[in-house]
Amino acid sequence: MSNKTISSVGEFGFINIIKKKFALQRRNKQVSVPIGDDCFCFKSGGINLCVTKDMLVEDVHFKKEWTYPQELGAKAVEVNVSDAASMGGALPKYIFIGLGLPPETDFKYVEKIYQGIKNACAKYKILLAGGDSVKSDKIIISVTVIAVGGKNIVQRTGAKAGDLIGVTNTFGNAGAGVELLYKYAGKRKFNKEEKYLIKKQNSPQARLKEAGKIAKYLTSMTDASDGLYVSLDLIAAKAGANIALEKIPLSKELKNVFKDKQKQINLALFGAEDFELVFTVAKSKAAAVKKLVPTVSYIGEITDSKKVKYFYNGKEQKIKYAGFKHF
Amino acid sequence: MSNKTISSVGEFGFINIIKKKFALQRRNKQVSVPIGDDCFCFKSGGINLCVTKDMLVEDVHFKKEWTYPQELGAKAVEVNVSDAASMGGALPKYIFIGLGLPPETDFKYVEKIYQGIKNACAKYKILLAGGDSVKSDKIIISVTVIAVGGKNIVQRTGAKAGDLIGVTNTFGNAGAGVELLYKYAGKRKFNKEEKYLIKKQNSPQARLKEAGKIAKYLTSMTDASDGLYVSLDLIAAKAGANIALEKIPLSKELKNVFKDKQKQINLALFGAEDFELVFTVAKSKAAAVKKLVPTVSYIGEITDSKKVKYFYNGKEQKIKYAGFKHF
Repeated sequence: MSNKTISSVGEFGFINIIKKKFALQRRNKQVSVPIGDDCFCFKSGGINLCVTKDMLVEDVHFKKEWTYPQELGAKAVEVNVSDAASMGGALPKYIFIGLGLPPETDFKYVEKIYQGIKNACAKYKILLAGGDSVKSDKIIISVTVIAVGGKNIVQRTGAKAGDLIGVTNTFGNAGAGVELLYKYAGKRKFNKEEKYLIKKQNSPQARLKEAGKIAKYLTSMTDASDGLYVSLDLIAAKAGANIALEKIPLSKELKNVFKDKQKQINLALFGAEDFELVFTVAKSKAAAVKKLVPTVSYIGEITDSKKVKYFYNGKEQKIKYAGFKHF
Repeated sequence: MSNKTISSVGEFGFINIIKKKFALQRRNKQVSVPIGDDCFCFKSGGINLCVTKDMLVEDVHFKKEWTYPQELGAKAVEVNVSDAASMGGALPKYIFIGLGLPPETDFKYVEKIYQGIKNACAKYKILLAGGDSVKSDKIIISVTVIAVGGKNIVQRTGAKAGDLIGVTNTFGNAGAGVELLYKYAGKRKFNKEEKYLIKKQNSPQARLKEAGKIAKYLTSMTDASDGLYVSLDLIAAKAGANIALEKIPLSKELKNVFKDKQKQINLALFGAEDFELVFTVAKSKAAAVKKLVPTVSYIGEITDSKKVKYFYNGKEQKIKYAGFKHF
């Protein structure tokens, strides 16, 4: 009998098994959003606190040669702020940094990581609340952020048939950037448009302001950290959805660097780390949302088919998951 | 010019530089205990929340061959609960688990880690609030715990000249256990007393109840995670202290396995991970504390000498730091 490995169980299989293991835990009345969303939220003295935790590991999530340490530090903050944003623009207040560092790491390098963390914290007025460092083989940045939620905590679930599916800005840039790095880093120089895509990979920006502006209109929201395809599955799979692939917003840089339409769509769906908002809103509120955040595009509609269906100019397309697997 | 590495800067040097970097951050009025204590504490709706974050890394903090996965999971919880305990018995409520796992890890092994986490959470009524897993070379367990503080948040600073220095239970067991593992694991069987010491290393117990009972009497407290020597430095260095080495409580198991008195004291001072409480209390309250927690011993007194001085039967001893260095 062969034993199962983490790799063979897969990340989502793994999470499901763990969830089951803890399912019998009593539900705490203070909990407003339980485990399984972008943040865990609980009430303290009537205030909703949203907590998120993310880990970046060298050679899995980043390579030292491809990212400046300042970018890395800032990114570690932004990806957590993005989780807070997707709860309806919860305001990040406190950050805890755990660093794993190989002993031979140049101290200046670590200082620059912290400089990036500091810059991003200053931007959002986040207070450094804790930090520990341990020895490790690879660089690990483990971040916890505590945010104060507004009146409207927006969860991943909540989409209803007839709702429109909205997204912010453009998709596929970060995935395109990492592909360019894999192919050409160290081999040739990058042109301006390629640099734009690489910057989207290395310096993502959380959509905190946007999320806060539109939170009260939304029925569900998440951020596209593992690719648009995964995000759509998370918010739409229980109800169902029809997605118009040709409506997914793409940057001119992406379209110029990757001319093939199929490739563009693959990058948009399966390229991770765009950290754009993916949300649903009742049709009657869609125009108001677009007015508040002009970078919003609507790419589809929630149905009751229990499946996320993809169309290109009205013709249904077979799409198979092809994104990044953690294990 | 040679560049400084993390190893050459050292853990405490590193923390000081980082603290300086963030020193200009504005103090937030909600913060009750800033970065630098066992927990960071802030007020939310009038309630004091205490947050702690710790990381365990394979082959740095544990070896797979020496610890059962259930023990490992439980230990990851206990060490964080111990941090909450040392703020005056703050009650742990929510836990966030970040796991780094090599893809080839046997899934059963990971399940057992989670079983250990679950058992320890059940013991303290802690709710699993978040979990993420990433690929890594070595097993990493990164834990964040949020606890609700009582009326009496006890900090590391606060000791006053004349206060007695108290500790719970005995010291050096965990350090002795790890030394036995390094020397003899896989080479010969362990006897009962050796097994006791190894269990102290692998299955530490946070002193949460004890801390809660005595919090209101104390002027300062920490837990002995990096060894008694470091703990005494943290609570007593600003004021000063005289420590009576012969009063440091030792288990009969430690004394039987390591017969040499000097060795016993070294293990007690520099052996890490005992997770016992180290605190100060006004002389007039010392008897009341001992009555509430009979495992308390008093091992010295706070002075105003600005130095921690060690005595053995009244004779001053030169003690040089010889503990575990993280880097």
